[in-house]
Amino acid sequence: MKCAVYGSQGHYGYIREAAALDPSIEVAGIAGAAEDDLEPLIKAFPGAAVYPDLETLLRKTQPDVLGVAPAFYRAAGASVYAMENGVDVFSEKPLAVNEKELRELVAVWKRTGRELAAMFGIAFEPWYLTVKKAVADGLVGDICLLHGQKSYKLGTRPDFFREREKSGGLIPWVAIHALDWALDFGGEPESVSAVHSSRYNHGYGDLEISAAVLLRFESGAAATVTADYCRPAGSARHDDDRLRITGTKGTLEAVDGQVFLEDESPKRALELQSAGNCLIDFLEKRREGKADETARRAFRATCIALAARHAADEGVLVKLTKEEMDITR
Amino acid sequence: MKCAVYGSQGHYGYIREAAALDPSIEVAGIAGAAEDDLEPLIKAFPGAAVYPDLETLLRKTQPDVLGVAPAFYRAAGASVYAMENGVDVFSEKPLAVNEKELRELVAVWKRTGRELAAMFGIAFEPWYLTVKKAVADGLVGDICLLHGQKSYKLGTRPDFFREREKSGGLIPWVAIHALDWALDFGGEPESVSAVHSSRYNHGYGDLEISAAVLLRFESGAAATVTADYCRPAGSARHDDDRLRITGTKGTLEAVDGQVFLEDESPKRALELQSAGNCLIDFLEKRREGKADETARRAFRATCIALAARHAADEGVLVKLTKEEMDITR
Repeated sequence: MKCAVYGSQGHYGYIREAAALDPSIEVAGIAGAAEDDLEPLIKAFPGAAVYPDLETLLRKTQPDVLGVAPAFYRAAGASVYAMENGVDVFSEKPLAVNEKELRELVAVWKRTGRELAAMFGIAFEPWYLTVKKAVADGLVGDICLLHGQKSYKLGTRPDFFREREKSGGLIPWVAIHALDWALDFGGEPESVSAVHSSRYNHGYGDLEISAAVLLRFESGAAATVTADYCRPAGSARHDDDRLRITGTKGTLEAVDGQVFLEDESPKRALELQSAGNCLIDFLEKRREGKADETARRAFRATCIALAARHAADEGVLVKLTKEEMDITR
Repeated sequence: MKCAVYGSQGHYGYIREAAALDPSIEVAGIAGAAEDDLEPLIKAFPGAAVYPDLETLLRKTQPDVLGVAPAFYRAAGASVYAMENGVDVFSEKPLAVNEKELRELVAVWKRTGRELAAMFGIAFEPWYLTVKKAVADGLVGDICLLHGQKSYKLGTRPDFFREREKSGGLIPWVAIHALDWALDFGGEPESVSAVHSSRYNHGYGDLEISAAVLLRFESGAAATVTADYCRPAGSARHDDDRLRITGTKGTLEAVDGQVFLEDESPKRALELQSAGNCLIDFLEKRREGKADETARRAFRATCIALAARHAADEGVLVKLTKEEMDITR
């Protein structure tokens, strides 16, 4: 399995991790765009050849899969280029920073028949897989409410974060994880409303510093999601990811990497599942002919993130149809 | 200070508590409507005379303040009757179960010049007063996000809970507390969207079992609120109230009656303030000529709860104007 990596911005660490876990994964080459810093990429993939641009990278290495992690506004174009050149795509989320590029990406994905997955690595952390198993085992019953929290430090971010056109903003970059979780458990979304604000963004251009999203699902369930860059610089940890699922039989709560169940019995911690890796999952699904699932997941999460951003920008509620969401049809 | 109590449904316990704390508060009489059970009222106020109806109660006792806690659809009418007969009102929330009655109540409050407060007792618990002080002391900086959670057991509820016209539903009865907290800290709301569902309500008529609300504030801050009756019957505790406030300097989190602050220093518990009582607060504000504050708070919370319920019923985003919210103008 030959991989190449384009860009140093996102979670290319999942590719390094996958290569360490599975020796059949070879990272043959790397390249970056203007915003990228090749030093950490070279350190992460010491055996990989370095190429001057995406075109050369693909031509010289002829990879099976391209890891796409450039400045976010370049991701969709790189994915399109890869698929049109016969290469499958393992892309940073969001797949695209605007709806036009997302639609183009979907069209190319359909036309070329290539496979695609997004770097939703948190969904393969032990706590998430533990929540997933508990829900599948029926421990919460039917789901009524979901609440996801993504809380980050702002820290120092690359310059392109200052421009909406280049970064996509807070909801597509950060809240998208919790939106992915909500879609994973909530089913078919019917509508989304959202709020975001760049007011206290420490001079980071138009970057939003806080956001909240409300989803209504066909089942009657609701999901609330919050995302922020408000964690103080001195906080012990970079992030504070949380997920709460309230169902007819009990409530699951993931916090600090642990998962707690409260039902007829008192609240207790569940035994954690082993960690997964999102690239290895993609490659497995690809081998099994099930990679439509990973593409569908990536498209749906991107689609709802862009719809939520629009809802927040315009102060409107956006209705979603199955046709819009099931972009893989 | 002579009080009378009408109805056995709500939180008349605050009146008993206030009378125990302040011997100048006398509960002179009680009465109930068709849905009420006088036994617990008689036990709570052993010195009070029992009257057959509201009219007789007011005529015979001539109270300064009437505690209003009948089946929720009767509250607005009882408050109107009291104010028109020269009596101030300490009412269960919501003040009214529909907008028509709320508008009528406001009109009578303005015309009569009487005073009014709602039984927002949670806002006088030690944890809430501790959050309030921490925010006032600037410990979180400017507020970006609020998340409030109300999670209850359904248990066995009076029959009138089965009918929207009589109970008002989940948002006006339960979520209203967290909406009150959000308004208390978030300032001027600009819009509200919401989701609720009665799907898994154990045959409780049209009663919603779960709800989620999103508020946008003028400041750019957002609040998410969830409410449910999903806590399993066997849960150790009836409720699971929580409040999280994320600001530019730190995050406050209230859970299990404790309050934690995380900022540049590691997360730690704050020393709890002493409990207050919402009737004593009302009587103090009344003496100081500041009872407009309690009325405004009660009207705003009721107004936003009814707007959220409408948003959830219709699947729309409701824009709010200052004129609508500042019903005391």
